[in-house]
Amino acid sequence: MKITGYLKARQKLIDAALDSYLPAENEYPKEIHRAMRYSVFSGGKRVRPILTLASCEACGGNVKGAVSAACAVEMVHAYSLIHDDLPAMDDDDFRRGKPTCHKKFGEGIAVLAGDALLTYAFELLSGGKDPAVNNEIIRALAEAIGSNGMIGGQVVDIQNQADPDLPTLTYINAHKTGALIAASCKIGAISAKAPGKKLDALKRYGEYIGFTFQVVDDILDKEGFALALGVDGAKKEAARLVAKAHRELGIFGRRAKPLGDLADFILNRKK
Amino acid sequence: MKITGYLKARQKLIDAALDSYLPAENEYPKEIHRAMRYSVFSGGKRVRPILTLASCEACGGNVKGAVSAACAVEMVHAYSLIHDDLPAMDDDDFRRGKPTCHKKFGEGIAVLAGDALLTYAFELLSGGKDPAVNNEIIRALAEAIGSNGMIGGQVVDIQNQADPDLPTLTYINAHKTGALIAASCKIGAISAKAPGKKLDALKRYGEYIGFTFQVVDDILDKEGFALALGVDGAKKEAARLVAKAHRELGIFGRRAKPLGDLADFILNRKK
Repeated sequence: MKITGYLKARQKLIDAALDSYLPAENEYPKEIHRAMRYSVFSGGKRVRPILTLASCEACGGNVKGAVSAACAVEMVHAYSLIHDDLPAMDDDDFRRGKPTCHKKFGEGIAVLAGDALLTYAFELLSGGKDPAVNNEIIRALAEAIGSNGMIGGQVVDIQNQADPDLPTLTYINAHKTGALIAASCKIGAISAKAPGKKLDALKRYGEYIGFTFQVVDDILDKEGFALALGVDGAKKEAARLVAKAHRELGIFGRRAKPLGDLADFILNRKK
Repeated sequence: MKITGYLKARQKLIDAALDSYLPAENEYPKEIHRAMRYSVFSGGKRVRPILTLASCEACGGNVKGAVSAACAVEMVHAYSLIHDDLPAMDDDDFRRGKPTCHKKFGEGIAVLAGDALLTYAFELLSGGKDPAVNNEIIRALAEAIGSNGMIGGQVVDIQNQADPDLPTLTYINAHKTGALIAASCKIGAISAKAPGKKLDALKRYGEYIGFTFQVVDDILDKEGFALALGVDGAKKEAARLVAKAHRELGIFGRRAKPLGDLADFILNRKK
């Protein structure tokens, strides 16, 4: 599979950049920097930053120039997982087979490590070459992850732990998972200074595959949409969404091949 | 006291702006928006945003143009109090005589309300007129409140609850309280497009009065510096810091009168 080689190369690029940006473990106060790094380097697939880079590429932008924005997106993702795992939220002891941040470092440090990653993402975004582009990216990210976006999804999630209905489930996933994935794509397009038409197309592409991502998660975990729609219904829905995602890529030509492959990869993943 | 009339007028201006910026209580999902507003409108003195406006004024800038940045600073302050009050941190049930956010709304919503206020502060800052100025303000704020700033102070605070020594106490307060106050002043100067010399002078002014603020807090609460230095020693230290703050204002002439009065107000406050 060619996409696997592409993904591995991109993961390596993102991991090296994250390592260079994050404060060192022995920087005072050490505990917070250890916790930040522990959570960022915990075996994530780097789907979001890879989407940022592939979206930049699809718009003919300079991929190297989008690496810091891609890393900011991944830091925001790591922050959201740390806070979602807290006892007062989803109360998870393990993530990807390792103790969650609060299990390893305590709840206080975990809250602060999440806060610091969110804050550092914005600091990193303010350091790009072009202040107007930075500003637009910061706005797109903040809108996507605020109380009307990702945080709103988490609020509705913790308020509806027992058997949410399909509209509620749809709201939760569009916001909790979908908003940041859509923003990841849009940010890549902004960093390439793409025109509005392309920005909008990539935002929609991101919304479709963000939704696909969650539906496939639910099929693999036999929960959420897999219960509400049945496994076959959920699989059909995922395929329908990915087909819509592909249609959005038409205007980009062959530069969007990685984005097309990523959509198929998200649909067909087995873990 | 003329400063009281000035403070009241500024508080009113800030409160009205915060009310106009924050999502309405009945905006879905309601609970998070109620929690955000509950914490922002809980009787704070608005010292930080007033410093932002007065710093802008001292540099000859347009005060109205700095109101949104001033509100962003206050939202960050509110976020930091919500997270500091959590059971895993300082574990406070009351703040200014009212139940803390997690006591009123539960821990999950409190964590998310803090997250949302932090996020919204950056969204608000990205909406100013001049993208280059927005970018510089975002950078100054994020640096001040990250793991090497305010969050770092909180980390060292929760790790040293029992009888910290004077250097540790100094680190905690310079970072936990001082960094955001210094940034509040610097941000006002940035919004006025002040030259580097004035930016630096106001950052130092902010550091001195940030420290004064904490020393006076400790004198009033009979803790921290009041125990380490004795009440008389702490009072002397506060007066020495305010004198240094005044000296920084020399280059601004009479436009800095409100900043001078604010320094005296912080030194002489009785609650």
